[in-house]
Amino acid sequence: MNSPKILDGKSVAAAVLDECRAETAELLTKGIQPGLAVVLIGSDPASQVYVGSKARTCAELGFHSLKIELPAETTQEELLQVVRDLNADPAIHGILVQSPPPKHIDEEAVIREIDPRKDVDGFHPENVAKLVLEDPSGFVPCTPAGCMKLLEVSGINTNGAEAVVIGRSMIVGKPMALLLVSKISNATVTIAHSRSKDLPAICRRADILVAAVGRPEMVKADWVKPGAVVIDVGINRVPDPSKKSGYRLTGDVAYQEVAPLCSAITPVPGGVGPMTIAMLMKNTLQAARQLS
Amino acid sequence: MNSPKILDGKSVAAAVLDECRAETAELLTKGIQPGLAVVLIGSDPASQVYVGSKARTCAELGFHSLKIELPAETTQEELLQVVRDLNADPAIHGILVQSPPPKHIDEEAVIREIDPRKDVDGFHPENVAKLVLEDPSGFVPCTPAGCMKLLEVSGINTNGAEAVVIGRSMIVGKPMALLLVSKISNATVTIAHSRSKDLPAICRRADILVAAVGRPEMVKADWVKPGAVVIDVGINRVPDPSKKSGYRLTGDVAYQEVAPLCSAITPVPGGVGPMTIAMLMKNTLQAARQLS
Repeated sequence: MNSPKILDGKSVAAAVLDECRAETAELLTKGIQPGLAVVLIGSDPASQVYVGSKARTCAELGFHSLKIELPAETTQEELLQVVRDLNADPAIHGILVQSPPPKHIDEEAVIREIDPRKDVDGFHPENVAKLVLEDPSGFVPCTPAGCMKLLEVSGINTNGAEAVVIGRSMIVGKPMALLLVSKISNATVTIAHSRSKDLPAICRRADILVAAVGRPEMVKADWVKPGAVVIDVGINRVPDPSKKSGYRLTGDVAYQEVAPLCSAITPVPGGVGPMTIAMLMKNTLQAARQLS
Repeated sequence: MNSPKILDGKSVAAAVLDECRAETAELLTKGIQPGLAVVLIGSDPASQVYVGSKARTCAELGFHSLKIELPAETTQEELLQVVRDLNADPAIHGILVQSPPPKHIDEEAVIREIDPRKDVDGFHPENVAKLVLEDPSGFVPCTPAGCMKLLEVSGINTNGAEAVVIGRSMIVGKPMALLLVSKISNATVTIAHSRSKDLPAICRRADILVAAVGRPEMVKADWVKPGAVVIDVGINRVPDPSKKSGYRLTGDVAYQEVAPLCSAITPVPGGVGPMTIAMLMKNTLQAARQLS
């Protein structure tokens, strides 16, 4: 049995945040304080946790941070007006509307209303197009950006590698595939999904396997080529009576059986998760620089 | 030796154009005449041929067609003003700036200036994003749209199929991959390119192989799985002293040796080529409907 390299997202994220902190200090000497606004509609507990941790990270870095909590019954037009006000606010460089909003909100219309120069989530059509066009002035969605950063920092060569991305979402799968196939990364990329035939065989081709489906421990040992690098984007709660909380977190990869086969693997938690928030901060810094 | 189905782009394109003609006649009864403006800068002979054939097809369908020929020394600002005037012209529903423009022109900036609702080439960031987001109100670039139409009309099932696209351009490779992996098509899609390792082995996995690289007869018999469907997007001129013109047209696929292996294949010429212009007309009709 092999001992794989653990791609420690926690420590890589900490290093990214250290860089952000230093850069923020430098910007502050020029009178620029990066500002991130997070808009939360309703009181979903998981969303509140995310929003809280974003605000905390902002504070740690010296960012200006604005948390706007709106009642669940906020109308579309009221929400759009909040976004417009943030677009016009010179102290705010990044705007994020916590997903998912209540059902009566048209999320896509809200995203379109965000000034693309402040769209640090990278979901605005302008930024989606820039990703396809490989224009580095755009914002890359935080989770795939975090995966790429982990690969880069860990010295994993994507050039000519066979990468397989399981999942074709707008938030992870598609942008991840576009990043891997770009002229910077040069991987051969396969996008697989729930409708793919013989998913295990497809995954076994991968030098770099990215799982982003949201199905606990779906990727088994016989899905993985010995020596592969495995990036597990899934964060799933599964019931576990042995835990005080009643559940444990698990990825899309059956870690115990897969890890011994890999040359490198991300744990869950502590792999991709911490990278996402770090890249959000990096995007906000980029916005502050580009807008100043 | 097998006898493959020839995916006859000429006849499929003719059928698409027949539909367009019928729909145009119907729109005319409502006082709407679809209008396409083609802007040509300089006097590149190949571009003139393309522009001429677009104008001819417009005339055949009953479209209003406007050909704007500008001298090679036209400035960026002059060209942008022409685009703005066309954006404002209610008789024009589709705007196309023939590529490639002279070197001093910033083509991307010109594309961004086109009203996305008139961007029948599908290259504007708004339409690129709509393609990624699978929003059918956008315009799909004509060549990949033509390939998809050929597959559809020929009854080729993409669901769960392994598709390999060689080439990662903005005009063909990437949009083709996005169309094939969409929730309508559901193919497992691999994007391969010049930096891929062992391209023949990757291509041999394909149930549907799309070659869009611009290298004459690159795809050989041992690159193709028996029974595969092969879509050849390449149109290359190779010297041929036996021809009056001194050249012949050939695709990216070595047709003679590959065809006997395939279940279906597009010829060059007469495959994807005629589809491109047919889809341009279809896009212009879509624009006329959406703008009216």
